[in-house]
Amino acid sequence: MKTIKLGLIGFGTVGSGVLKILAQIQPVIEKKLGVSLKLVKIADLDIKTDRGVPIAPNILTKDSDEILNHPEIDIVIELIGGLEPARTFVLKAISNGKHVVTANKALLAKYADELFSASDEKNVGIGYEASVAGCIPIIRSIRESFVATNINSIMGIVNGTANFILSKMTEDGSDFDDVLKEAQEKGYAEADPTFDIEGIDSAHKIAILTRLVYGTPVNFDEVYIQGIAKITQEDIQCAHEFGYRIKLLAISKIDGDSLEVRVHPAMIPVRHSLSSVDGVLNAVRVEDEIMGEAILTGHGAGSLPTASAVLGDVAEMARNIISGTSTNRVPPQSFLKSGQRLLVIKSINEIESEYFLRFNVNDKPGVLSIISGILGHHAIGIKSVIQRGRDLDGRGVSLILMTHMANEKNVQDALLKIDQQEVVCKESIFIRCEK
Amino acid sequence: MKTIKLGLIGFGTVGSGVLKILAQIQPVIEKKLGVSLKLVKIADLDIKTDRGVPIAPNILTKDSDEILNHPEIDIVIELIGGLEPARTFVLKAISNGKHVVTANKALLAKYADELFSASDEKNVGIGYEASVAGCIPIIRSIRESFVATNINSIMGIVNGTANFILSKMTEDGSDFDDVLKEAQEKGYAEADPTFDIEGIDSAHKIAILTRLVYGTPVNFDEVYIQGIAKITQEDIQCAHEFGYRIKLLAISKIDGDSLEVRVHPAMIPVRHSLSSVDGVLNAVRVEDEIMGEAILTGHGAGSLPTASAVLGDVAEMARNIISGTSTNRVPPQSFLKSGQRLLVIKSINEIESEYFLRFNVNDKPGVLSIISGILGHHAIGIKSVIQRGRDLDGRGVSLILMTHMANEKNVQDALLKIDQQEVVCKESIFIRCEK
Repeated sequence: MKTIKLGLIGFGTVGSGVLKILAQIQPVIEKKLGVSLKLVKIADLDIKTDRGVPIAPNILTKDSDEILNHPEIDIVIELIGGLEPARTFVLKAISNGKHVVTANKALLAKYADELFSASDEKNVGIGYEASVAGCIPIIRSIRESFVATNINSIMGIVNGTANFILSKMTEDGSDFDDVLKEAQEKGYAEADPTFDIEGIDSAHKIAILTRLVYGTPVNFDEVYIQGIAKITQEDIQCAHEFGYRIKLLAISKIDGDSLEVRVHPAMIPVRHSLSSVDGVLNAVRVEDEIMGEAILTGHGAGSLPTASAVLGDVAEMARNIISGTSTNRVPPQSFLKSGQRLLVIKSINEIESEYFLRFNVNDKPGVLSIISGILGHHAIGIKSVIQRGRDLDGRGVSLILMTHMANEKNVQDALLKIDQQEVVCKESIFIRCEK
Repeated sequence: MKTIKLGLIGFGTVGSGVLKILAQIQPVIEKKLGVSLKLVKIADLDIKTDRGVPIAPNILTKDSDEILNHPEIDIVIELIGGLEPARTFVLKAISNGKHVVTANKALLAKYADELFSASDEKNVGIGYEASVAGCIPIIRSIRESFVATNINSIMGIVNGTANFILSKMTEDGSDFDDVLKEAQEKGYAEADPTFDIEGIDSAHKIAILTRLVYGTPVNFDEVYIQGIAKITQEDIQCAHEFGYRIKLLAISKIDGDSLEVRVHPAMIPVRHSLSSVDGVLNAVRVEDEIMGEAILTGHGAGSLPTASAVLGDVAEMARNIISGTSTNRVPPQSFLKSGQRLLVIKSINEIESEYFLRFNVNDKPGVLSIISGILGHHAIGIKSVIQRGRDLDGRGVSLILMTHMANEKNVQDALLKIDQQEVVCKESIFIRCEK
């Protein structure tokens, strides 16, 4: 049986998952591929820590060049994450004629054009299924299954940490800070959780999906990003009262020649297909005029699920190698280079959405009239209103509104104006709604 | 641009969907494939009915040989369904060196070995994504994404008609017969709904998935099949009271060298990942030790969703043709022929499950003792009990039990025994539960 040789750069959680799976189910993989996969070299700055998986000592190295220049390695697996030195390593692997499999969403969100040009030139593949939503096969599905369709929107819950926090806040009634602490203790959140809770990780993923789905370049800096750190228990409970749940959504919609690409907390109706995706689960929903909707759900992170996606891509490369298949058989970004177009990403001010608005106001006659007057003046229609409690301690009462579809700029302008009113006690809160 | 020529046999709902999609989004397909897809011939016994899609008259024929022997057709799309003449047509297409794409689950459930041997010999492909759960990319995901894993179970809601009926019964409190009639009026159920409501269609699909997932031949006649026609509104309401919903599930589980492959109505907890899959939606859930679970949801039937899956497979064949890729690059049944094994399908009597039991009994002291005594004697532990109402009109009361895990044979024996008791008024009802 032929052997395909692998080099792994980055021996962290996912890297050790790759080793575990290979040790455990190599026979199954061989029965499917007809080749044996052999990990011949692992590079990491830390070659001492025990990863809890048996490994021959001569396999470990601190020098990534031992992999990148290795004459026998067919496929380089990049799992160090971040922009540099990952970018340099991947480009070097490609220029040395090696196929690359990576789980690095930041890298692909930022440097996709450069990387795919390089791989195209050298006729090697870049597999990146693991970069978006772990073991959920969304990238392969878009490239190979959802071919004969025109996708109108793709949206998802693509960050398990943020979803765990929001789910826990919903279930237990706990506050953000307490749940974050618990998530960190359980290993669901990093010591520095910024990328996850501020929505940056989700934005990387939706940038990658946007390229694939619409065949357009995406300037990552144009993706609108808002995190979940300001979501309070009161928001969660108001959502519940209106029959909604709050999720951190990554959203990409096409509208003629322009796109909305945005990440923010959103209220979705309880019956929405993403509303019951709880805990660390991820899900991605595709919508079009042909299939209606398709939703893929699974574990978006974690050692073994992500490693499984990495090895799925390794299998694809291995199959190409042994059957002598061109890596261009399927365009890596779904559309051929010649089939790409340039879509413009709208500023967040241009989008239309329904909004949940929460005001903290004095409990005085005429308050609703002032606020609804300003909203009306900004062409914002009100769908429903709840006013809660009495102002017993002088800290104001909550006035909660759901709007009809409205323009974001109008909503922002109206909120600015409302917050200047004397009857308003605190900065007003808004959360966008998705139907 | 190169043109790949298609012949279509069977111009029904899905066939006209294929035409509609090709007319509508040919440019998008070209931007992804770099080839043009051209439907050059359509064979159907009825070439007169207007399918609501423009078509050149010389394309239609009653003679399938005009497609099967056509010198220029690369790919034959078989959409007539059923065993014969579909089997003969597909074998002839293969023997004439044509690739085949089919949505025919009955054919594959029954003749997979014969068909794949033939296609292997002639080095042509058989695409069959559309045969299971329409546009849900479960077959491609198993073959190409879930490679580095060992699946323990696959289960799904894979019949939209049955799911529509059960969902409607749950939502509206209507009876089976009324909902069936509504489904027929809305076009969600055939005039003869036997295949859908009796579970045969679901059984075809789980037979196909079982082959793929475990790499084993499946004798279709060994699949246990029970339909939904006997599910009553009382069952639905009891399920609700226990925090469950009733779904028609297709289940395939591995246990050492043996398999459980069965289709039947099942109670699943409200929080189960399949419980909120309602209406005509389908969903398939895969479970393993590596990924945990993955769930794929979408439209399992209908003209355009199914046609989209058909064209996804056409795209795969087209890519193989233009890049000169061997169709054996990915084994059509996931495992290589040499990697297959023979797993034995357990008799339904051998399975273990939790059971919902509903007895109609006289409202007399000692009844619970008689019934629980018989259950205990058959090693069936009781998890919870509800006794409802009083026997005001002499028609008995409902005694409802949920059991712990128990052996099916024991349950059947116990029910036989219980139904012989004088205190029991009607045949007892059982529904298996899935956790």
